[in-house]
Amino acid sequence: MSKVINSVNNPLIKQLYQLKEKSRQRKKTGQFLIEGKRELSLAIKGGYKIETLLFFPDLFSESEAKAMSQYGIDIIEISKEVFQKLAHRDTTEGVIAVVNSKAHQLEDLKLTNKNPLILVAEAPEKPGNIGALLRTADAANVDAVIIANPKSDLYNPNIIRSSVGCVFTTQIAMASTTEAIDFLKHYNFNIFSAILQESEPYHTQDYTLPTAIVVGTEATGLTQEWRDAATQNISIPMQGVIDSMNVSVAAGILIFEAVRQRRINE
Amino acid sequence: MSKVINSVNNPLIKQLYQLKEKSRQRKKTGQFLIEGKRELSLAIKGGYKIETLLFFPDLFSESEAKAMSQYGIDIIEISKEVFQKLAHRDTTEGVIAVVNSKAHQLEDLKLTNKNPLILVAEAPEKPGNIGALLRTADAANVDAVIIANPKSDLYNPNIIRSSVGCVFTTQIAMASTTEAIDFLKHYNFNIFSAILQESEPYHTQDYTLPTAIVVGTEATGLTQEWRDAATQNISIPMQGVIDSMNVSVAAGILIFEAVRQRRINE
Repeated sequence: MSKVINSVNNPLIKQLYQLKEKSRQRKKTGQFLIEGKRELSLAIKGGYKIETLLFFPDLFSESEAKAMSQYGIDIIEISKEVFQKLAHRDTTEGVIAVVNSKAHQLEDLKLTNKNPLILVAEAPEKPGNIGALLRTADAANVDAVIIANPKSDLYNPNIIRSSVGCVFTTQIAMASTTEAIDFLKHYNFNIFSAILQESEPYHTQDYTLPTAIVVGTEATGLTQEWRDAATQNISIPMQGVIDSMNVSVAAGILIFEAVRQRRINE
Repeated sequence: MSKVINSVNNPLIKQLYQLKEKSRQRKKTGQFLIEGKRELSLAIKGGYKIETLLFFPDLFSESEAKAMSQYGIDIIEISKEVFQKLAHRDTTEGVIAVVNSKAHQLEDLKLTNKNPLILVAEAPEKPGNIGALLRTADAANVDAVIIANPKSDLYNPNIIRSSVGCVFTTQIAMASTTEAIDFLKHYNFNIFSAILQESEPYHTQDYTLPTAIVVGTEATGLTQEWRDAATQNISIPMQGVIDSMNVSVAAGILIFEAVRQRRINE
């Protein structure tokens, strides 16, 4: 018999609700919530450890849930009310999991390619932009993403959602800008900082060696540290009236130029 | 003396509030609201006709407002309450304008380049994506954007906002997919439809002739009409776990590959 929780006032449910709502609580416990089958399967594929699986039997089959218990996962049946309390989006999948966070340390990055490609985003703020950056990173199969001077934790439900689970499929490190620069220099990366001033058009540069492409925020751009550390500042020539692009679009253009050059060189 | 309106119950203010909130009202009147100095100046630059300018004197100088009256623009001073009622975002600029819509007909597009580049988006829905597409169109200085089978009017405050005014700086036509295809074929455009199936990698194609790059929605992709009309289906090779990208990122990558080829050929 699996455990059943019907009340939103159950202490565990109250605790899990905090996990959904509060970054602080996620940091304290080292856990976060995942909602939906696809996200869950991507997290498992990405090596995340599932602690507990909660399912609402009208939407998620009990046999499917029970099958997870052989992997040492606690299974809890929940009521509609409890499911709605914990669910972040309008979903019809009826499954929520409590998952252990990863440490996202620079030293844990596994760079097995001879000429790795890394996307660095400094201090990105909007969950939608972070999600789009991670989707680009997945599509381009970059070797890693580094979030420098992070402003939020990765397991914000809006980031998981807007990344459509790509937060689980790419190696991600979080570090200060100083640490990230030290790491990249130590491994002899060419650092291309996306900056309008004193920059070369992005398409004139060679991205086939170990390459880090670094983007800042739309509001403030990159810090001076990245300007100083750059092998070359690069920019996307702006031919219109406005002098800025959406940061995730800009990152997509730069990363896929690197990918294009690497394909031609294959 | 300029006119002054202090009450949110004033009939004109009620009517303008509808203009902000309701697409139907914008269609009926052929007018919409613009908020903020930058957006207003981009609209004027883009040839939009301003009918009325409303300003809250604590935030926008009366002399600046009065200067507009020489262009035949009605000037109305409004109270803080009225300003807050009509303002869409947290702004400190104190200026809102009533502006005449454009018709956005295909036949109004002026294509003066020998080899024009057009971005076509079919049935885009999210204002944030439409805004990012228009920013990309501005940055790449495409000759026009065509919105095929439009789902919403262009003057939704969220589109104006997320485009940071680029909705005013680019030629935009709205038409059915059938009309858009007829138009492009009539002018001998090469049509590149972004579709995963039966497609060639985007970077292997030549975009230096008259080129239309066509993107669909993330949910349903392009309709069969665009597949049938395509000179060539193209795709961004997906090397990760997920098989889709954010539509505005994908459009950015495709459009800037065309721009890159055109620069090299210059």
